[in-house]
Amino acid sequence: MNLKTTFTPAEFEVLACTDLSQTTCVVFDILRATSSMITALANGAEQILPVASIDEALAAKAKYPDALLCGERDGLCITAAQTGGTEFDLGNSPREYTADVVAGKTLISTTTNGTRALRACANAEHTLVASFLNLAATADHLRAAVPENLVLVCSGTYEEAALEDTLAAGALADALWEKYDECDDATQTARLLFNSAPVEETILQAKNAQRLLSLPDLADDVSFCLQLDSQNFTAVMDGDGMILR
Amino acid sequence: MNLKTTFTPAEFEVLACTDLSQTTCVVFDILRATSSMITALANGAEQILPVASIDEALAAKAKYPDALLCGERDGLCITAAQTGGTEFDLGNSPREYTADVVAGKTLISTTTNGTRALRACANAEHTLVASFLNLAATADHLRAAVPENLVLVCSGTYEEAALEDTLAAGALADALWEKYDECDDATQTARLLFNSAPVEETILQAKNAQRLLSLPDLADDVSFCLQLDSQNFTAVMDGDGMILR
Repeated sequence: MNLKTTFTPAEFEVLACTDLSQTTCVVFDILRATSSMITALANGAEQILPVASIDEALAAKAKYPDALLCGERDGLCITAAQTGGTEFDLGNSPREYTADVVAGKTLISTTTNGTRALRACANAEHTLVASFLNLAATADHLRAAVPENLVLVCSGTYEEAALEDTLAAGALADALWEKYDECDDATQTARLLFNSAPVEETILQAKNAQRLLSLPDLADDVSFCLQLDSQNFTAVMDGDGMILR
Repeated sequence: MNLKTTFTPAEFEVLACTDLSQTTCVVFDILRATSSMITALANGAEQILPVASIDEALAAKAKYPDALLCGERDGLCITAAQTGGTEFDLGNSPREYTADVVAGKTLISTTTNGTRALRACANAEHTLVASFLNLAATADHLRAAVPENLVLVCSGTYEEAALEDTLAAGALADALWEKYDECDDATQTARLLFNSAPVEETILQAKNAQRLLSLPDLADDVSFCLQLDSQNFTAVMDGDGMILR
C-alpha cells in the first residue's frame, strides 16, 4: 500500500506522464478551487467540468449551453475583456456558489491551479476532489476503499507549493496512516507539518490566505474554506473528466 | 529580500529556465552528495566538478587526467560495466573522502540528484554547496551577504522530495529568518518542519536514511552526514561549474 504526495505544479507534468491506471488521486486546492467545487455540489450543482484554459471553457459552453462559466485568473472573475466578449458567470469564491445560483446546473470551471491539477490526474483509476469541507468524508471513503496506490495532489499557486494544500494533504495522510505501509518523504513532510502546526493559525501565514485577507470582497473566503467537515460527501471525477458527488 | 525553496527534482527544469542572474542558490543533498563534497574539500580536495552524466564525467576526465572519478548510481559506486570499461575511483560515501585519498586532487562527481541540482543552478549569480556539516558557516556567510533573491534547492531522491533536504533547508531558512521579509510557502513548510521535528529522530524516518541504514557498508554514512557544523567553511560553485572552498 503506497502513499505519495506532490507539492508543486512542476509535478503535474510528471503525474500526467505516469501510468496512473492503478492509482487513486486526491486533488486539493484549498484556497479556493476545490472548496468552491465541494460547495457547489453541496448546493445542488449537477456536475462540474474542470478545463485548463478559457478557450476550452468557451468550447465546453457550446456543448453545454445552459452551463455556468466559472473560475478565475489572478484570483478574480474572468471578464469579457479576457475572453473576447463572454463575461464568466461566477468567480472562484465558494460563497458565490449558493443553491439559488447553482442548483441543477452544469458548471464549467477554469482556475490557474486546481483545474490544471485535476487535468493532470485525467488518467488515474479514480480521482477525488477534496477540501477541508469534506475531509472526513474523503478519509472515510479511502479508509474503506484503501486504494493500493494513492497520490495526494497539492495544486499549489502559480508555480509554487501552497501551505494550505500541504496541510490538507498532511491531515488526510494522518487519517489514513495505519492503512499505508509505504510512503514517500513528501507525505512524511506533510503529515509532520499537520501534526505540529495548528491548521487555522498556520494557514494565516500562507501567501494565498494573506492575499485573500487583504481583499475586502474575498477575505471571508479564508474562514469559509476552513470549515472542517461541514459536508459529508465525496466528490469524484468520472472518466469524461466530469466531477460529481 | 526574497527567499524561496524548491523540494523536488521536477523543479530543476523550472530553475534551469529561470533568470537566476540576480539570485543566489544553496544546494542541499544531505544523503549524501553535498555532505561528501564538503568532506572532500575539508580533507584538501582542490576542486570538484559536478557533472550530470557518466559520459560527461568520462569526457571531463580526458581534460583532467589526474582527477578522481566519483559518484553513484542507485547509491553504489559506478562500475566498469556501467561506463564501458572505466571503474570509478570513489562512491558517494563521505567516509571515503579521506585526506590520503583526495588531498590536492580534482574530483569529478556524478550522482543521481545532487549534481543534477547543481547543474540546474549553473546560471545563478552565486551557488553555494551546503550540508549539515557546514550549515552554520553557510548561514553566517548569507547573514552577511544577504542576497536579494535566495533559493534553497533540495536535491531530493530520484524524482521525489527528500525529508533530510527539506529539514536542512528549514534549518537554514530559520537561521536567516529575520533577514527576509518575503518568502514562499515551501520555505514556510520547511521552516515549520525544522522547528517542530527533532532533526536526528526525524531523518531516521526518511526513505534515504532507512535505505542506507539497511546496508552494512553504508549505515554509518547517516550519522556522519548529521555531524552539525563539523566544518566551518562555505563551498561555492564558480562560473565554470567548479566547486571550491
